[in-house]
Amino acid sequence: MNILVINCGSSSLKFQLINSESEKVLAKGICERIGIDGRLTYQAAGSEKTKTEKDMPSHTEAIQYVIEALTDNETGVIKSLDEIGAVGHRLVHGGEKFASSVIITEEVKKAVEECNELAPLHNPANLIGVNACEKLMPGTPMAAVFDTAFHQTMPEKAYMYGLPYEYYEKYKVRRYGFHGTSHSFVSKRAAELTGRPYDATKTIVCHLGNGASVCAVKNGKSIDTSMGLTPLEGLVMGTRSGDIDPAILEFIAKKENLDIEGLMNMLNKKSGVQGISGLSSDFRDLTDASLAGDKRAKIALEVFSYRVAKYIGSYVAAMNGVDVIAFTAGIGENDELVRAAVCSYLGYLGIEFDEDANNTRGQEIELSKPGSKVRVFVIPTNEELAIARETEALIK
Amino acid sequence: MNILVINCGSSSLKFQLINSESEKVLAKGICERIGIDGRLTYQAAGSEKTKTEKDMPSHTEAIQYVIEALTDNETGVIKSLDEIGAVGHRLVHGGEKFASSVIITEEVKKAVEECNELAPLHNPANLIGVNACEKLMPGTPMAAVFDTAFHQTMPEKAYMYGLPYEYYEKYKVRRYGFHGTSHSFVSKRAAELTGRPYDATKTIVCHLGNGASVCAVKNGKSIDTSMGLTPLEGLVMGTRSGDIDPAILEFIAKKENLDIEGLMNMLNKKSGVQGISGLSSDFRDLTDASLAGDKRAKIALEVFSYRVAKYIGSYVAAMNGVDVIAFTAGIGENDELVRAAVCSYLGYLGIEFDEDANNTRGQEIELSKPGSKVRVFVIPTNEELAIARETEALIK
Repeated sequence: MNILVINCGSSSLKFQLINSESEKVLAKGICERIGIDGRLTYQAAGSEKTKTEKDMPSHTEAIQYVIEALTDNETGVIKSLDEIGAVGHRLVHGGEKFASSVIITEEVKKAVEECNELAPLHNPANLIGVNACEKLMPGTPMAAVFDTAFHQTMPEKAYMYGLPYEYYEKYKVRRYGFHGTSHSFVSKRAAELTGRPYDATKTIVCHLGNGASVCAVKNGKSIDTSMGLTPLEGLVMGTRSGDIDPAILEFIAKKENLDIEGLMNMLNKKSGVQGISGLSSDFRDLTDASLAGDKRAKIALEVFSYRVAKYIGSYVAAMNGVDVIAFTAGIGENDELVRAAVCSYLGYLGIEFDEDANNTRGQEIELSKPGSKVRVFVIPTNEELAIARETEALIK
Repeated sequence: MNILVINCGSSSLKFQLINSESEKVLAKGICERIGIDGRLTYQAAGSEKTKTEKDMPSHTEAIQYVIEALTDNETGVIKSLDEIGAVGHRLVHGGEKFASSVIITEEVKKAVEECNELAPLHNPANLIGVNACEKLMPGTPMAAVFDTAFHQTMPEKAYMYGLPYEYYEKYKVRRYGFHGTSHSFVSKRAAELTGRPYDATKTIVCHLGNGASVCAVKNGKSIDTSMGLTPLEGLVMGTRSGDIDPAILEFIAKKENLDIEGLMNMLNKKSGVQGISGLSSDFRDLTDASLAGDKRAKIALEVFSYRVAKYIGSYVAAMNGVDVIAFTAGIGENDELVRAAVCSYLGYLGIEFDEDANNTRGQEIELSKPGSKVRVFVIPTNEELAIARETEALIK
């Protein structure tokens, strides 16, 4: 079966058409500047990438162009819409309502809408994508795959903040966690690679991209993760602060005359390694600058790796041990210096780090030497494939 | 030499007169409700505690009463002021200016004042106590012992937040840490107890009181600690939230119509285990309620211990190992259930926990069994003695 995987933002829409038997990507692309002017980038497997300016007043036109491209006589990979068996939608926030993926119904859409205020930038955009697909592909089953669902197994001690309990009761203020599809995909693969049963393995997944989070997966279940109510908490990220003393907000608000929206904008967009370095949120830039002697770039990189190592340490305690540590996403898959820096803190776990193996990028590889007490891997994540698998499993 | 140790708050003043040779407390007490009406609680060693209502319009009168009580014919322990060789003042925030204790001069007072905005509730009150003592005991050397000084050895990667660097340059926004006198005192004692050289030992000190912090002490130096710019960050405390997703502030501000001061008040005074339980910030109350079946009291205790365990885990990573873990302060010294809960996460470190030894309160004792790879102790803290020692060392 062919599954169309959709990741819809407020002005963009990423897609992949995946064959569920071969798990091959038949075609993929992105619609950008939706509602502004519009551009479709499209690539069929084995072909060149093409970019076309298209008029996209709304997501409906965007999806119409995607369908046209997929079924086009020349560039297409399928003959008609009938060859798309299902659509899998990435949804960001499922709140406490969704602990797993679901087939989308009117009720599901209503429940997702009720989570909108927990993800005001993402959920409404995700739902726009769902509605546009329903309009153009009536009768095709659609699945919702939530970023938060995998973390719904966290125990209270991990998801409750030290806040007045009424905020949880009234507003559902708690830790949710994100990147769940990736943490689930990578932790499952880690178990496969070690030959251990997934439900008897303690895994720590470091999803290190521009957004970054760490997850403790104990016996196949997420028991803690570094992002919280929102994706701002936890690691120092590209432009996000991660954990800070909450009292800093009052201090900076007064000094810089910022209101709460101004503070949030600063914490989300002007902080992280970008904020420390004043240079870039891109780790390649930071590494180059650091090697050229830039002090702040060096600090930014040290702060980043140190925070990752501390989260790993805390999750080893949370699980009272660890069997496997996996690095994934842009930085985790491609930045050997970050991986080496993080692992330099972890000798006490009995990790024997293989510097040679670490000198590779973007491929699945073991970073620990044979006999290492804890095994360390690079496992490229594939959220689209994970969404396709979840979708297929639901409609079978 | 007799050293008067002063811990001065905005409306209270705690004191101890300590003999530096015997390290015995000759007398101690507290002045309360200064500026309101005034009450002196006084106790000479071996005598009963007395409480007297006294008119204390300012800290000067309070200290005058302390001196009178200390030199009184009946209740006194010294004949005259001449028998006080020095005064040691606890000062909360030394910013980046003070990495150790110092003899107080006009310059020092000015430098402390410059740190006022980092501790607006504490530093000005501390300085009032200094000035009052100088007025009544001219010529007696005075030392400033800072809560932050011990942590000034932290490396940049531990004290820099993932924030725009200019906030550090312009306003000195960084991690400072507190409870330094206690963390220093307890970590030194821990090394003594293990027979290890202090400068070659990795220690984690858990100072668990109503305010609570964890500190990683590597080779005699603080390399990281859980409190930050202010004492709000880190552990879930009696009424303080500790770490939360900073984005929660925006969410709650809108829902509850709170401004930034209202948020800070909530995070400092209505959160922590008090906020979760809705019952009490006192761990004895929470334990009783939890044993009687109160669900929220149980969650509060679990969240507290889990957070402590995670911080220990993160500091083991920060130091790439640990030799000794020490519990101190009110909860650390007296709550065996919390200690057992925290250590239940740490078997992976090779800790063999002695349940029998743990059934003691308020005394120095080893909690690990002979042969335990990592040793665990209860070490009662004594900040006043530590201040007296620092003071004596400075004027020798």
